[in-house]
Amino acid sequence: MNLIERTEKKRIAACVETVRKKAPLVHCITNFVTVNDCANIILAAGGSPTMSRHPEEAAEITAGCNALVLNMGTVSDLEAMLGAGAEANRLGHPVILDPVGAGASALRRRILAQLTTQIHPDLIRGNASEIRFLYDGSGKETGGVDASPEDGITWENAAGWGSLAAELAERLGCIISVSGQIDVLSDGKKTYLFPGGCPEMSRITGSGCMLTALMGAFLGADPGNLLDAAVCAQGTMNAAGEAARKKMKESGGGTMTFRLHLIDAVSLMTGGRWNEYAKVNELSLCDL
Amino acid sequence: MNLIERTEKKRIAACVETVRKKAPLVHCITNFVTVNDCANIILAAGGSPTMSRHPEEAAEITAGCNALVLNMGTVSDLEAMLGAGAEANRLGHPVILDPVGAGASALRRRILAQLTTQIHPDLIRGNASEIRFLYDGSGKETGGVDASPEDGITWENAAGWGSLAAELAERLGCIISVSGQIDVLSDGKKTYLFPGGCPEMSRITGSGCMLTALMGAFLGADPGNLLDAAVCAQGTMNAAGEAARKKMKESGGGTMTFRLHLIDAVSLMTGGRWNEYAKVNELSLCDL
Amino acid sequence: MNLIERTEKKRIAACVETVRKKAPLVHCITNFVTVNDCANIILAAGGSPTMSRHPEEAAEITAGCNALVLNMGTVSDLEAMLGAGAEANRLGHPVILDPVGAGASALRRRILAQLTTQIHPDLIRGNASEIRFLYDGSGKETGGVDASPEDGITWENAAGWGSLAAELAERLGCIISVSGQIDVLSDGKKTYLFPGGCPEMSRITGSGCMLTALMGAFLGADPGNLLDAAVCAQGTMNAAGEAARKKMKESGGGTMTFRLHLIDAVSLMTGGRWNEYAKVNELSLCDL
Repeated sequence: MNLIERTEKKRIAACVETVRKKAPLVHCITNFVTVNDCANIILAAGGSPTMSRHPEEAAEITAGCNALVLNMGTVSDLEAMLGAGAEANRLGHPVILDPVGAGASALRRRILAQLTTQIHPDLIRGNASEIRFLYDGSGKETGGVDASPEDGITWENAAGWGSLAAELAERLGCIISVSGQIDVLSDGKKTYLFPGGCPEMSRITGSGCMLTALMGAFLGADPGNLLDAAVCAQGTMNAAGEAARKKMKESGGGTMTFRLHLIDAVSLMTGGRWNEYAKVNELSLCDL
Repeated sequence: MNLIERTEKKRIAACVETVRKKAPLVHCITNFVTVNDCANIILAAGGSPTMSRHPEEAAEITAGCNALVLNMGTVSDLEAMLGAGAEANRLGHPVILDPVGAGASALRRRILAQLTTQIHPDLIRGNASEIRFLYDGSGKETGGVDASPEDGITWENAAGWGSLAAELAERLGCIISVSGQIDVLSDGKKTYLFPGGCPEMSRITGSGCMLTALMGAFLGADPGNLLDAAVCAQGTMNAAGEAARKKMKESGGGTMTFRLHLIDAVSLMTGGRWNEYAKVNELSLCDL
Repeated sequence: MNLIERTEKKRIAACVETVRKKAPLVHCITNFVTVNDCANIILAAGGSPTMSRHPEEAAEITAGCNALVLNMGTVSDLEAMLGAGAEANRLGHPVILDPVGAGASALRRRILAQLTTQIHPDLIRGNASEIRFLYDGSGKETGGVDASPEDGITWENAAGWGSLAAELAERLGCIISVSGQIDVLSDGKKTYLFPGGCPEMSRITGSGCMLTALMGAFLGADPGNLLDAAVCAQGTMNAAGEAARKKMKESGGGTMTFRLHLIDAVSLMTGGRWNEYAKVNELSLCDL
């Protein structure tokens, strides 16, 4: 695999500025654990979040927004999700799905099946265990929402995860984003790998949900350019994570200091900084 | 318009200490996005928050509290709001209403109509678009919860907003608080303008909700002195915002650093600091 | 009362490392006000939180976890709590109950009665007013969730609170944890007192809920050693509070700076630090 070309990188970096210029309205139907972090990271990027989840208004709110984020973390908003999802599909607004805890309970398996058959998502973002469950229905039977240890993404198996993501992306006709130590993103034709996810990400709640929300802001600002927008969102999160980690270490702080600086760094991101700090590789055929 | 007199300012500043002395219990029925921030800013000011929203106990909880805050952010608590609101009215406890997203959906329009006809609020706080919707039913048709750009409050149009707020206050028999670049507050007889709302306020979620919650603490501590209490709460928020902005700039931080210092500054506020840093103008007839 | 013996202290300190090694899954059915803080403090300690509260999956999620935390803060999850609680009891997973606002409304009195009769908790943690209500049904009639001022725990009355906790622990067959200026913890046979709860704890929302969540992580990691685990969790919280208070004072910060450093300190805790900084006394018969 190789670092992406300089011109491609510059083109992708510009998406940071597009979000600030367009200030997309992002409708999130998301869980109550991390909803505040999701709202703040969307605002930090330059978007404007709306968190309505009432079935009676969800579709109407979606119609006035630029993107829709469906986060399965709490599984009690199915009716609102289906209504808003159908409306977003009808209007051509990007729909981002986060299958939190996919496979962790019978209820979640059933809801996920409904969401993926009745709605067409433009991007699905999950951890390795969640994406594996989408891929072949296999996966852990624990009650947790974190990825199983056996699903760690390393340089040794990254190419395999890239090819799994590409296959799933092609099958579902959407972008697949897999979060791990190395992040993977594919639309079925092009597959990117992102090194440098820091361990602190999994010591705060909501790092996955926040990335999904960020995808909503980037895709909502750039509906004609979804792959670049998604790559830019992922690179933003990772570069912000590295910056936050550095600040945390310097100050002798802990996990909350990391979270503070993570969202801070997103709010301070520019196209120039992205171009300088984001690390993106492209997976080529010869890696497989 | 002119800065308020020194004696008036000193009298209003004393409300900061009243909240700390009385430690009012503030019952908030509020949205799940910013509820934690609302609880923390009430505690920072010296109050004690209770967030019960179960219809079966809402009125009973309200009866034991000093003020009731109704925040329409999530629109699923109507029954609890109506029950608690009626009880607070009956007992003469200050009721503060935040019409989040007023006009953004049919559901919200209907709920707002019910809240304002079946309950008598003592203070309504909203952004310019929400207050304009209350004033004449006009307003944006977007799905967002932020004010429309055309509803910006500037020195050029502040007198107009002051007169709109005064008219609405008189019509509804309550204090009207409009948040914007310049904040406006009126009870129909006296109208105040507050410069210095910082742009960072709209880059974090919950700055509006937090101000509404703060109004609950101040009005709950001073039920016989509502206008002074409201002016003091607004001045507290703005002075805290300026302090937070300064700290954020000094440290090179971003939006989360701003939020941290915003609530910190409320927790460190004193009557003396308020008197020194809060900026309050009174609108006089000749401004119109 | 006396400081505990050096060997006992070292044994208890080791529980800090057990949580990190076992990384227990903690299922929390908890209130929406402080849920994010609860998730973050569990992660900071080394556990992994899951916040499912859907009645249809609650028991299934619990089965895959190591401990169950039931927080009565919002009183709308009774069905999920009863289902998950029965399952955790059946499997022998530690169940931790936080009777938030016990006695504050008829609804809460009824729900608490159901929870304590239909489920066997292994540990109940509450403030002094909540624990007093459990003890004899007496208590305040206010709408707030904070302890009544008359229920302050001081060195003068700590032995009395210790004996109340021990009696209640014996009656209910579980550990009782009482939070106050001095914290009390008893399993009916041994009773511990913890000095040094800092006043800032009651100026942020969620310090009680966070301690309850932390109990979940510690008991879930050490199901055969519940009393040591509970003492270690309490000592962790207090030592973290003292560290946070010091950092807050040094930086001239306020309540949010305190919260940041509180969770940070939990994430930085080690067995060695615990052994050095935690303060634990044991109440002996001659104190009574």
